[in-house]
Amino acid sequence: MKVAVVKEIAPGERRVALVPEMVGRLRSAGLDVLVESGAGDGAWLADGAYADAGASIVSRDELLSTADLIMTVGRPDEQIIGRLRPGQAILGMLNPLADPGLAATLAASGVTAISLDGLPRTLSRAQGMDALTSQANVAGYKAALVGATTFGRFFPMLITAAGTARPAKVLILGTGVAGLQAIATAHRLGAVVSAYDVRPQTKTEVESLGATFIELTSVGPAAGEGGYARALTEEERQAQQAELTAHIARHDVIITTAQVPGRKPPLLITDDAIKAMAAGSVVVDMAAGPLGGNAAGSAADQTVVTENGVTLIGAGNLAATVPGAASAAFARNVSALLLHMVADGALAIDPADDIQAGVVITHGGEVIHPATAALLPDDQSRSAGGAAQ
Amino acid sequence: MKVAVVKEIAPGERRVALVPEMVGRLRSAGLDVLVESGAGDGAWLADGAYADAGASIVSRDELLSTADLIMTVGRPDEQIIGRLRPGQAILGMLNPLADPGLAATLAASGVTAISLDGLPRTLSRAQGMDALTSQANVAGYKAALVGATTFGRFFPMLITAAGTARPAKVLILGTGVAGLQAIATAHRLGAVVSAYDVRPQTKTEVESLGATFIELTSVGPAAGEGGYARALTEEERQAQQAELTAHIARHDVIITTAQVPGRKPPLLITDDAIKAMAAGSVVVDMAAGPLGGNAAGSAADQTVVTENGVTLIGAGNLAATVPGAASAAFARNVSALLLHMVADGALAIDPADDIQAGVVITHGGEVIHPATAALLPDDQSRSAGGAAQ
Repeated sequence: MKVAVVKEIAPGERRVALVPEMVGRLRSAGLDVLVESGAGDGAWLADGAYADAGASIVSRDELLSTADLIMTVGRPDEQIIGRLRPGQAILGMLNPLADPGLAATLAASGVTAISLDGLPRTLSRAQGMDALTSQANVAGYKAALVGATTFGRFFPMLITAAGTARPAKVLILGTGVAGLQAIATAHRLGAVVSAYDVRPQTKTEVESLGATFIELTSVGPAAGEGGYARALTEEERQAQQAELTAHIARHDVIITTAQVPGRKPPLLITDDAIKAMAAGSVVVDMAAGPLGGNAAGSAADQTVVTENGVTLIGAGNLAATVPGAASAAFARNVSALLLHMVADGALAIDPADDIQAGVVITHGGEVIHPATAALLPDDQSRSAGGAAQ
Repeated sequence: MKVAVVKEIAPGERRVALVPEMVGRLRSAGLDVLVESGAGDGAWLADGAYADAGASIVSRDELLSTADLIMTVGRPDEQIIGRLRPGQAILGMLNPLADPGLAATLAASGVTAISLDGLPRTLSRAQGMDALTSQANVAGYKAALVGATTFGRFFPMLITAAGTARPAKVLILGTGVAGLQAIATAHRLGAVVSAYDVRPQTKTEVESLGATFIELTSVGPAAGEGGYARALTEEERQAQQAELTAHIARHDVIITTAQVPGRKPPLLITDDAIKAMAAGSVVVDMAAGPLGGNAAGSAADQTVVTENGVTLIGAGNLAATVPGAASAAFARNVSALLLHMVADGALAIDPADDIQAGVVITHGGEVIHPATAALLPDDQSRSAGGAAQ
């Protein structure tokens, strides 16, 4: 079986799905590894490093015609989608719940689509495959750095002959993987860190990282399925906002991380909250994307300064800006999942396996992932591709 | 006496010479404080905050016609220089050894020029006035953040389900104030930090910050006067470079801080050293300016990526990018110096005072600072301005 790594071409995307370090591991399992020339450029990984590890460096054209399985980080580009053929497989973060149309297209082409973001995250043997976690970890680290770099004062308390600078007050909203790493990093830099999450059970973890957990009195617990926060009711959300607004105004740098997969992110920092913030404050909105963000007025991949001097940074894809760390972790995740699904040098699709049940989105011409299929009209989830495999 | 704060207009300059917190201190000494409208904008300090502290907010025009002493951060802009009149004073970082022409112009206008960068830095009672130190401290902090933000991997060692990321190896060249704060900040972030300086006596300080001091065997001690490193001989420099090149190639992020006042910065990272560095390495060149930098190919205020994938960041004015912290410290320095020079509500110039001997550059129509005067033709240091005061 030939597994292949394409060069990502989405704007700002500097990650690559496989790093040279992992090539040997795939080859030991009897897989041939093809790498599109230049695939690692954004992460400073040269073709030569892949070749030295035993990969074949090929053109995109050769890759697309000969690969049995194509690994990507994000959504494959239109050229790839257009050229995939029945029996080929694609493996990456395909985000099927937000983008079910892609699944329908791949099913219609007879392509087996495997999406890392469908992984059952609470399953301990799947942890090494969990790219959502590994990428959120990188993004949380970078969010704290972006906050520190943008803020006009010090994060740590510094006592010098020119006076004492008080430490920055940093607030993290949402204490999932990204939030916890943002806490750890801001704390390392010497900031005084507070954090809030609708799930009070994260309090212990927050405190173990040296931060204060903010407990709102107006909202009850909200842990949902699969380790995600559940969506709040409208009434809960308003009560939460009113109370949060007071906390927000006391902080210098706020990092928001609240995403609900496939849904519009909750608005945690309202217009009123922003107006109450001091000039020079910074918001790093890690949820900012096409569906909106956690802060009113933030825009995906843009930095906006409000009239009252608050800098809003739309930072929905920070993992891509730390491409070495993010690619190394992603490559381990994708390799672990791939090796889990390979038997005797070939892909062994088994929807009865609890990991595969989460990640296999299309196979044999159908959208077999129930949650994705539920988002599609019946004729799209069981499409023409019945001819495949 | 009316002391006035102008709005800095140099590109990228976001600092302001005085912050609202210091206004009261100057007023207690019998000084009136004028602030140009918008002077604090770049540091998120509103006119209203100055007014609340007791300053008068004025137009630039009113300021220039009524002020007795004008405070600036950097070189005053051409409009200010053109409108200064005999008897007025200007106080800022005038950099007279690199820019003696400005001193000659100010002397010719009969202006008293006071430059913070002439302060005797080893005098302990002058430490609270030492703006070179306070600004270098801010810049060193930011240099480590810029390095971390640009580097494509983690600074700390992180152990996760997706594998162990080794810590970044950071090298600081030059362990003055900026270098020490860069060490401290990179160490806070979890990097493995090494440092080198031609002055071996900084070893203890470096080690106390958790870094390793690199000792080169090819160069002897080079402590110079006033706490600066002395310039090395050409032979010493070449031997140093050859040995450093080997160290440089082993590091991921390098921060260079070696400036000699008024002189071209020493070239510490040669073309050969850059060629020996791994793709993805980052150099933050804090000496990069119009006279050159510490790294071959770095350019002031620009980011350049070399053919072999090394990112060279020309970062000669980083303090201006942390305007809140930098302005607060600068304001304390400038206020302390001003109050030292004021008696009965007026400027009391006394070149016999050891602090004033360093900072008063022009007075009574003459360039009275010997080191600056020595750089000028005789007729420029004793110019037309004899009419003043």
